[in-house]
Amino acid sequence: MKKTFVLAPDSFKESMTAKKACDAMERGIRNVFPEAEVIQVPMADGGEGTVDALVDSSKGARIEVTVSGPLPPEKVLTYYGLLGDKKTAVIEMAKANGIEQLAKEKRNPLLTSTYGTGEMIKAALDQGVEKIIIGIGGSATNDGGAGMAQALGARFLDEDNHELPLGGAALKALAKIDTTKLDPRLKDTEIIIASDVINPLIGPKGASVVFGPQKGATPLMVEELDQALAHYATVIERDLEIKIKEQPGAGAAGGLGAGLLVFTGAKMHSGIDLVIELTDLEEKIAHADYVFTGEGGMDFQTKFGKTPYGVAKIAKKYNKPVFACAGFIGEQVDVLYKEGITAIFGILAKAGPLEEALALGEINLERTVENIVRVLGVRRRLF
Amino acid sequence: MKKTFVLAPDSFKESMTAKKACDAMERGIRNVFPEAEVIQVPMADGGEGTVDALVDSSKGARIEVTVSGPLPPEKVLTYYGLLGDKKTAVIEMAKANGIEQLAKEKRNPLLTSTYGTGEMIKAALDQGVEKIIIGIGGSATNDGGAGMAQALGARFLDEDNHELPLGGAALKALAKIDTTKLDPRLKDTEIIIASDVINPLIGPKGASVVFGPQKGATPLMVEELDQALAHYATVIERDLEIKIKEQPGAGAAGGLGAGLLVFTGAKMHSGIDLVIELTDLEEKIAHADYVFTGEGGMDFQTKFGKTPYGVAKIAKKYNKPVFACAGFIGEQVDVLYKEGITAIFGILAKAGPLEEALALGEINLERTVENIVRVLGVRRRLF
Repeated sequence: MKKTFVLAPDSFKESMTAKKACDAMERGIRNVFPEAEVIQVPMADGGEGTVDALVDSSKGARIEVTVSGPLPPEKVLTYYGLLGDKKTAVIEMAKANGIEQLAKEKRNPLLTSTYGTGEMIKAALDQGVEKIIIGIGGSATNDGGAGMAQALGARFLDEDNHELPLGGAALKALAKIDTTKLDPRLKDTEIIIASDVINPLIGPKGASVVFGPQKGATPLMVEELDQALAHYATVIERDLEIKIKEQPGAGAAGGLGAGLLVFTGAKMHSGIDLVIELTDLEEKIAHADYVFTGEGGMDFQTKFGKTPYGVAKIAKKYNKPVFACAGFIGEQVDVLYKEGITAIFGILAKAGPLEEALALGEINLERTVENIVRVLGVRRRLF
Repeated sequence: MKKTFVLAPDSFKESMTAKKACDAMERGIRNVFPEAEVIQVPMADGGEGTVDALVDSSKGARIEVTVSGPLPPEKVLTYYGLLGDKKTAVIEMAKANGIEQLAKEKRNPLLTSTYGTGEMIKAALDQGVEKIIIGIGGSATNDGGAGMAQALGARFLDEDNHELPLGGAALKALAKIDTTKLDPRLKDTEIIIASDVINPLIGPKGASVVFGPQKGATPLMVEELDQALAHYATVIERDLEIKIKEQPGAGAAGGLGAGLLVFTGAKMHSGIDLVIELTDLEEKIAHADYVFTGEGGMDFQTKFGKTPYGVAKIAKKYNKPVFACAGFIGEQVDVLYKEGITAIFGILAKAGPLEEALALGEINLERTVENIVRVLGVRRRLF
């Protein structure tokens, strides 16, 4: 009987996109069972690769845009995704204002801004979509999403009624927020934040303290930014009557979580669950015989909202075996067995530098999947 | 139903012995099926690790001896194996006269000698064994096995009836061979060379030309050694009436193959086939459900007499699935599928230097076998 394989890997970071991983897996399967039914579902968890995975899964399009980078007025040429339904846009904030876009010496969260992310949202609105999904991992910013809101028409004014400059540090001079010119289309558009971060905006678990240092903030800068965001939240509460200080997830992406919740009416969703829903993964797994997943690296942390865990959760519900592949297998990966992952294999063919392993990712993944399928073939007595 | 696993790996060179590999594999199996029937058969192919594998497989003993190293009169403390039957000794020539025992700058095949190998044979004869198996890979020598024969009583004389000094270069002055004092016990002892080398003693495919350079021979030295061995073979033919020049395998281990054939009446056997026979592997595989094998590295050359190939050949005969693990997976490993290997998995958990991979070999092998068994468990619907 023809078997159905559902392929639902995340990207293998710096080695291959989720789609390329699906292609490699499919080759591995077809080397053994050329006639197999193979269903590719490139996956992501709201982090890097989410736009690519959802565009590839839905046969959508990449829409190029030029927007402000992390340090305006510098611009970046980037893209967001328009899904196959033509009604849903997918944005990764890091594609405009991500930490990877700044050389180490230019990383200054006092100044970096989410303005470009707001411009991407505006571009998606111009496209006429009904829904915008925003992945917010990997930010270089700590501006509470104020830059994003400014790009969409909000005005942040000081005591002299002058517009504040961009960047998180400027918020300490915030006297008044004017949302009268906020883009009216936001009201009619469903905006969803794909994020598993639950940190609040301010305080010891807040955006500045927890994520500031990895964006280049010194201890003094962390303190300055935390105070600026606290003041920002106070003004929001006073002018807009929205309590944001304690909101879980408001601290994601340097407070972009807060900005999106306040100024765009966004709702927050688990990234992997959102992608599972958008890709109809559950329906596909329900009819599968075998499920393959994987990611560049897997360890006990995979349990905290990563793609292989999300895929396994669904597969477990339908009692389907899940085979996972990874380039890096870290500590306590065996905790994943009871979460529904049947087996986990490393794909490397030899010891040596990471760059070499990354370059050989597709070949190694193909070979490993081929061999897993060959073991499955023992069951079917085809060997 | 309780399943039977036969574990028949070679050593993983510089990482673990075949026995340690068996232990790691068994742990991996028992993590999934604590009640499984597991039969350990540490394997080797006549090369490095053959003594350890056969001692461990047969529950034999390691017998320590001090003999001449590659450059007499320097001595080495080493060991040979006495198998569980107490009647069979196993010797690795490289444990006395191997290339690894000489620092690069001391490698000089004009001078290196197999004298210590002869002393090991003598020690085994003193032990009263009926059979001696000699693995001859990895030699530092190019003396045609003359040193070995001298240690056992043969005399190699020059024109003035003086004994030749040790080493391959001295053989060019050989005028006469006197075997009257050769150890008489050799006649009553079965001596078997475990080797898959088919090179002749001399000429373009001979010991000096093919293997000399890796032992430190310059092109001039290669020529000198080839001529010395040709003269040695001529004298053997004249004095002992044995034609050795064209004999396949006579060129193994710098001509130690020839020396053993001529002076000890040895027979030559494929290393892996010999080990398979000595370990009753076929009988064990005939009653197995699953067979596991592996080696430090596997590629298309595994087909040329390496352990996983030998194991697969037997398993194929009985239609048993064979799962192989390796730290290094090289070119065209897929040619092994049709030789009976069901699937091949790399065991590495991450990119990085070889030393790190070698240090983590046992953990990685255990984890990989565990996951193969977990895939097999899908068949048995235990997950």
